[in-house]
Amino acid sequence: MKKQQTSESAKNLEKMLAVSPYNQLALSGVDPIKDVKIFDTTLRDGEQAPGIALSPEDKIRIALALDDLGVDIIEAGFAASGETEKEIIKELAKSNLDAKVCSLARAVKSDIDAIIDTGAGFVHTFIATSNLHMEYKLKMTPDQVKAKAVETVEYAKAHGMEVQFSCEDATRSDMSFIKEMVVAVQDAGVDSVNIPDTVGVITPRAMSYLIGELKSTLRVPISVHCHDDMGLAVANSIAAVEAGATICHVCMNGIGERSGNAALEEVAVNLFANYGIQTVDLSKIGQVSKLVERVTGFNIAGNKSIVGRNAFAHESGIHVHGVMSNSLTYEPFKPEMVGADREIVIGKHSGAHSIQGRLDKLGVEFPADHMPELLATVKKIAVTGKMIDDAELLAIVDNIIWKRGTKTKTVSLDELTVLTGKNTTSTAVVTVTVDGDDKRTAADVGVGPVDAAINAIKKAINDKITMEEYKLSAITGKSDSICEVTVMVKNVRNDGALSVGKAVGLDIVETSVDAMMAAINRDFARKRNA
Amino acid sequence: MKKQQTSESAKNLEKMLAVSPYNQLALSGVDPIKDVKIFDTTLRDGEQAPGIALSPEDKIRIALALDDLGVDIIEAGFAASGETEKEIIKELAKSNLDAKVCSLARAVKSDIDAIIDTGAGFVHTFIATSNLHMEYKLKMTPDQVKAKAVETVEYAKAHGMEVQFSCEDATRSDMSFIKEMVVAVQDAGVDSVNIPDTVGVITPRAMSYLIGELKSTLRVPISVHCHDDMGLAVANSIAAVEAGATICHVCMNGIGERSGNAALEEVAVNLFANYGIQTVDLSKIGQVSKLVERVTGFNIAGNKSIVGRNAFAHESGIHVHGVMSNSLTYEPFKPEMVGADREIVIGKHSGAHSIQGRLDKLGVEFPADHMPELLATVKKIAVTGKMIDDAELLAIVDNIIWKRGTKTKTVSLDELTVLTGKNTTSTAVVTVTVDGDDKRTAADVGVGPVDAAINAIKKAINDKITMEEYKLSAITGKSDSICEVTVMVKNVRNDGALSVGKAVGLDIVETSVDAMMAAINRDFARKRNA
Repeated sequence: MKKQQTSESAKNLEKMLAVSPYNQLALSGVDPIKDVKIFDTTLRDGEQAPGIALSPEDKIRIALALDDLGVDIIEAGFAASGETEKEIIKELAKSNLDAKVCSLARAVKSDIDAIIDTGAGFVHTFIATSNLHMEYKLKMTPDQVKAKAVETVEYAKAHGMEVQFSCEDATRSDMSFIKEMVVAVQDAGVDSVNIPDTVGVITPRAMSYLIGELKSTLRVPISVHCHDDMGLAVANSIAAVEAGATICHVCMNGIGERSGNAALEEVAVNLFANYGIQTVDLSKIGQVSKLVERVTGFNIAGNKSIVGRNAFAHESGIHVHGVMSNSLTYEPFKPEMVGADREIVIGKHSGAHSIQGRLDKLGVEFPADHMPELLATVKKIAVTGKMIDDAELLAIVDNIIWKRGTKTKTVSLDELTVLTGKNTTSTAVVTVTVDGDDKRTAADVGVGPVDAAINAIKKAINDKITMEEYKLSAITGKSDSICEVTVMVKNVRNDGALSVGKAVGLDIVETSVDAMMAAINRDFARKRNA
Repeated sequence: MKKQQTSESAKNLEKMLAVSPYNQLALSGVDPIKDVKIFDTTLRDGEQAPGIALSPEDKIRIALALDDLGVDIIEAGFAASGETEKEIIKELAKSNLDAKVCSLARAVKSDIDAIIDTGAGFVHTFIATSNLHMEYKLKMTPDQVKAKAVETVEYAKAHGMEVQFSCEDATRSDMSFIKEMVVAVQDAGVDSVNIPDTVGVITPRAMSYLIGELKSTLRVPISVHCHDDMGLAVANSIAAVEAGATICHVCMNGIGERSGNAALEEVAVNLFANYGIQTVDLSKIGQVSKLVERVTGFNIAGNKSIVGRNAFAHESGIHVHGVMSNSLTYEPFKPEMVGADREIVIGKHSGAHSIQGRLDKLGVEFPADHMPELLATVKKIAVTGKMIDDAELLAIVDNIIWKRGTKTKTVSLDELTVLTGKNTTSTAVVTVTVDGDDKRTAADVGVGPVDAAINAIKKAINDKITMEEYKLSAITGKSDSICEVTVMVKNVRNDGALSVGKAVGLDIVETSVDAMMAAINRDFARKRNA
């Protein structure tokens, strides 16, 4: 129940879309596509990605989220790889998920035995069928490979399991041998046959041809497992579906070995938007994607389809103008369809519309008659290659406002001394001048020199200012590399307004303090002009 | 000359590949594909990506690199957007590049005039042809749109320019109107017609159908411009080529509006590997990709096809074993084909092969009889979700070696005091004990507290140790957030061996010092056991 959006909500979804009319037209002559099952392998092939290692708790969190999203099968790991992995699969197998819980197994009995121990009812077993793999890796003849596959399938079926069999490296295997293999495992009782493009080496047209050939050979459902080595994993998955495959292996965020697997979010959105097939609850994609990003530590690129930071972000004047009139002019569908938000970004290519929208979002009132000046200043800065983030935009706004009012800094830092070390409580003393004549000195401690300095400044200003966020950019170089610090402060007296300050420098303590002072001055300037 | 690899080197490239035999087979019946031109829009559509803003110097650097890579057309910007943009295009137009230098223009005379000023000889002009865009954005009738397009093409041709015309949002435009438009601009003298999938909403099958229809209507070359909103930009580009398009718009690293454009590297590799068409010098892809990443500040995902960190990285035992026997078992082609390197990563899924390979690379000799212990320790740590980087691996190795030899730290930090502040030269004093009894004190200054502390320690140790790399993870939170520091030191006395130390803590100075001490101790331990 939870996975299926009702047909009513599906109708609403359709209003959110504007895809190409040629997608349906081009399917005339293709057998109707009725249903596709999502076989999620985020926790197996996804976790195999170099650099990803999930703890048992992480795996279980992700599995529960995938189940809630509505995937049909969760490949939770490779039971034979060790006791910890077995425990995870066992835990999931008894968790009453709507999804079937599956484990990978090589075509050897001991791997099946490891799964039997876990209580999982679904086995995904594989052996390579390409000459390249049989010769160099397996060092086995095709007959030996076929015998192993049949024996393993029979053994798993005899233990009452649902069995999917994969011809590893199928897309580089001889057609006659693939057919021989799949017929043999079908005769051995297999439930579905998977065709992996193990190394991402096939084109959509060729995938269509290959699946078409197998479709006419097999009775059992055909599955595909596509890798993205040449950027075609999603296209190959949908080409396979067009040709008759009914199960797609996918990973959230497209993680997996090397360039990863077909991305769950891209396959699911394609199937819905371009083929009218609902698989998972699309509106939960955004949150599950973020969970997987956080837990795996594997960052999503800004330009990642559907779940990237820029997927629904607009900066250039023409695009922002179009989106404001009708978002579908420059979006394939509304971001809420996949649980995402639209963003209007300020930069070199921005127009006045974008800037006004961003200021509204920051809650800053800006005199409309000064907009041309603001736009000109933004463009002048951005054109040199600088990004205008909220901090910079507020700095420019302040500058324009200041020119109309007071021009001097309101709080200035006269002195700062920090003492720190090992087994030493970091201590800072500051002297600041407020409004040009009010000198104040304060000392405070902290967990480190930056914390101590910031605490001392807050004490000296003696205002209801709290630090909401401190961001230090990653530094790679030597210990004297440049660092960039952004600080966001909130003034509880001033309607809780947020002010951002930014500084760049060599000394991390001094740079942090400069950023803090910039933020405080923006806050003061705003009060003055309020 | 520089762009074309010789047919001899092309032959060598073929030995580097193992793609699917079905790719060629599936092309039977398709008109032979002879040549494809690469129209690079990294500097126009790529730069329009929210968050990217390139300075004139950056644009020129990238343009020179793209020219050296061998792209055919460089869309360098949008001349009418301002004087700075015009200056960049002017500079490139007179730079004697092998590539043609192009500017974007809306279908208005003033945009063409802006390009005339630059001396660029190639115009890419566009107007939207979908009902959605004409109604909501342009607020123009189809007849008005067609008149504008024809007028602009005629005007640009009258000024002796090469002209490409785009039907913006073509993939959502009525077929009858697209055909009317392209025939009209062809009659007006256009040199090529571009079919943009502006919002990334078409499938490869539908793209094939659309281009096929236009191919039978047009005499001039057909170009495509595909966006990646649903992950199909590259597949749509090659589907268009299969159907007769001969120009592909691409961006390096797949940057561009929203989810970006078809990635140059993926289109070029596909055309070569799966269609036998050589476009750019593939071996330069790695370096140009890194340049664009660095200059745009737009990070490439670890799992990005061809140019991502993991594209040729292997961790799982089965894959590492296969790759060591024949790399093509788990790679579509050898990494050097695209100027990349293979990497063997140590983690939860590693076997002994991987660990030995990594230790060899780090120049660490490790007693073979202790490998089972090392492997077991690595697995035990990795299974909890921890990544084993070089620092951790060396720590584990040291621990195993120490158990067999000395167990105590060789250098310990007794005291550290750092003084820093505004208008203060950061100063540190340290006392360390070497080998349990040799106490040494030293003071030094630096550009900040971390630099001062590190300098004082180097002075106290009085050894030929240099810091090769300092990495501080990005911090977001409050000023008392946890930071992680990794330090790599090199000992010029000890054959230049590298030692890595890592520490996590609240105080940035103390954490940096802890990491430095860990690295120094590893270096000492290695000498002791050498």
